[in-house]
Amino acid sequence: MGILRGNAIVGQSGGPTAAINATLAGVIEGAINSDGAIGALYGMRHGVVGLLEENIINLSEIFASPDGEGIDCDKLSLLAQTPAAALGSCRKKLPNPADDSEFYLNLISIFKKYDIRYFFYIGGNDSMDTVAKLTEYLKYSDYEMRCVGIPKTIDNDLTGTDHTPGFGSAAKYIAATVQEIIRDCSVYAVPAVTIVEIMGRDAGWLTAAAAIPGRIANTPCDFIYLPERVFNMDRFICDVKGALEKKHAVVVAVSEGVRFADGKYVGEGSQSGVTDVFGHKYLAGTGKALENAVKEKIGCKVRSVELNICQRCASHITSRTDLEESAEIGRGGVSFALQGESGVMVCALREEKTEYSIKLSPLPIASIANAVRCVPDSYINESGNYVTDECIDYILPLIAGECDIKYNKGLPIHITL
Amino acid sequence: MGILRGNAIVGQSGGPTAAINATLAGVIEGAINSDGAIGALYGMRHGVVGLLEENIINLSEIFASPDGEGIDCDKLSLLAQTPAAALGSCRKKLPNPADDSEFYLNLISIFKKYDIRYFFYIGGNDSMDTVAKLTEYLKYSDYEMRCVGIPKTIDNDLTGTDHTPGFGSAAKYIAATVQEIIRDCSVYAVPAVTIVEIMGRDAGWLTAAAAIPGRIANTPCDFIYLPERVFNMDRFICDVKGALEKKHAVVVAVSEGVRFADGKYVGEGSQSGVTDVFGHKYLAGTGKALENAVKEKIGCKVRSVELNICQRCASHITSRTDLEESAEIGRGGVSFALQGESGVMVCALREEKTEYSIKLSPLPIASIANAVRCVPDSYINESGNYVTDECIDYILPLIAGECDIKYNKGLPIHITL
Repeated sequence: MGILRGNAIVGQSGGPTAAINATLAGVIEGAINSDGAIGALYGMRHGVVGLLEENIINLSEIFASPDGEGIDCDKLSLLAQTPAAALGSCRKKLPNPADDSEFYLNLISIFKKYDIRYFFYIGGNDSMDTVAKLTEYLKYSDYEMRCVGIPKTIDNDLTGTDHTPGFGSAAKYIAATVQEIIRDCSVYAVPAVTIVEIMGRDAGWLTAAAAIPGRIANTPCDFIYLPERVFNMDRFICDVKGALEKKHAVVVAVSEGVRFADGKYVGEGSQSGVTDVFGHKYLAGTGKALENAVKEKIGCKVRSVELNICQRCASHITSRTDLEESAEIGRGGVSFALQGESGVMVCALREEKTEYSIKLSPLPIASIANAVRCVPDSYINESGNYVTDECIDYILPLIAGECDIKYNKGLPIHITL
Repeated sequence: MGILRGNAIVGQSGGPTAAINATLAGVIEGAINSDGAIGALYGMRHGVVGLLEENIINLSEIFASPDGEGIDCDKLSLLAQTPAAALGSCRKKLPNPADDSEFYLNLISIFKKYDIRYFFYIGGNDSMDTVAKLTEYLKYSDYEMRCVGIPKTIDNDLTGTDHTPGFGSAAKYIAATVQEIIRDCSVYAVPAVTIVEIMGRDAGWLTAAAAIPGRIANTPCDFIYLPERVFNMDRFICDVKGALEKKHAVVVAVSEGVRFADGKYVGEGSQSGVTDVFGHKYLAGTGKALENAVKEKIGCKVRSVELNICQRCASHITSRTDLEESAEIGRGGVSFALQGESGVMVCALREEKTEYSIKLSPLPIASIANAVRCVPDSYINESGNYVTDECIDYILPLIAGECDIKYNKGLPIHITL
């Protein structure tokens, strides 16, 4: 396919991560270094929502080096260490091309106005759906534009790719924090149970990272419960009771998304009929539900800790592997588009070598959008209360390496676009 | 006073911090470098609880350099970056010397058995009470021993000292995390309120640290509520509503210990009559209470984040100033004891200079134990919903500088004693 000359636009969509701006930095680098194939790289504010309002900025100008030659690398590296979507994000599901051609005609008119020939969208499942639909529409349009999806999600639940940018850093934060929590909870010589609730509604990848301190630092958490297995409260209490017979401080990692056999979320189940002073249902969460169960059935000291949004935005402790790969995947997206690819997502394939490495590959996005990749059976132990060595081996290289974070007066420096 | 020769013992007590082992490292360094005045330095397991059971270890041996000359500095620096009390901790209140002389006779017999002439106790308020009582008893005993209290608490609420070891690192973690949370919450273009609940039952020092990103990174949180001011729910809702008229993402920092005018905790108040399936009262916490209030009175997207124990054990992001001072205060404690001081706590006095610096001073512990130092009036704004520049100026130097954390395979290395 020949060289398609024109401008490009990039957007970020879905939940924030600590690596999504490293990917954006990669796209910026790829576009500025495209030997003129890409003229200007625009950024959409708040994803397609901003695009529809023509709320866009010129990233090529913002990241041009002061002397006009090449890239402002200092600014780019600050962007890479800034958490959450620097362009802003959205959660917008596009209409089906067959149902609402007017929507797409409107989009195309904006693309034409800015001569946009490359469309890069960084995000998770829903964002890939956006790319898939836009590609689908373009098939029947005479407007030539190449659309590439660039993966991003801490949840690591996209198919086609070995892992997703953002997962490694979130996993590193979780592993480091669980290690610290285990230390914290072990100081007193009294029986105590600590429940750590970790993100992951359908896939337990992040929760599995709680196994890392046990492997490499001899600081194991005692049980790990993933949404891939039915949660049984009696078995949980039995697990914890058994552990308390051998040690004082028992630490449990649990995915927010674990469910009972009837399909009800564990967090949801415990709140039936419970309301606050305003009559609201208490959404106490999974950790709180297990905390209450331990209080009731065992009666020892118990606490729950919800890692909450910190696990997706903790840019002060990121995986160097993750951030480097995130930028590489961003550059890769531009490179694939320049080579003529469209309707693809940039996937990272783990190479079969003794040392960890990946190679990038563009895979058809239609097969990826809206599918969820769960933790496979071989990664979960038979009792369903921990992960296997194979699982830990899979995660370990993804958290490797530390980033050299730049600080000012005690705080990491972030950039505002 | 002459040189008192004999052995020493050190203990850690109260809640964990990320700096308490740096202080322990300082005591170890001071003792090993005491030119023989201190023979062996023992460590009590779980504070005085372990001491009473003679559950002690020989720290001089553990930290002797392999060649027998001096200190194993590598091991010492790993100790300093390990969170939570490496010796274990306890929460034990000693009896009054006048009420239970048998208790103290028992203690003295243990001191005699190990020829312990120096007693170092690292902790907060309650731990200083232990040192005060022991000192009091020793006045009427013929056993010569010097007792020195070494401050530690993330709460920063000890009197006599400008600040406490552990506070600077916790404040840095809180400031960095609040900065990340503000980034995270600002990505969507929809009205949203985020409540960050921060530790501090009686003193709002830690919550005040949420003001730092506003000063140095142009990432301000919108309101800060401390326990030093009566909390008024109507005023809070009015504050938040006003802010939402000007911006999408409103972020609020609140101390867990804020109370209503009637003295009831805000967290407690919202739970009246609310029980879970087991009939337990829901201890939803302050953040949850404010989240529910916003849901009810404003109705926009709202979330609460409880920083929980992470704020006291996050040794992966510590303040270099805090860790260096913590070690210095540990060494200072040994030095003061060798000079003849007893019944004192090592205090850090901020020197009146253009550049921040401290000098150490031993102050009588009886006046310090059991007193709480709150955030002064001049540090809180008139509306009671933010802190003043003077407050930020006070905290800033305490979070300055980063530590060179040693990692193995992606995780910080901790040491187990």
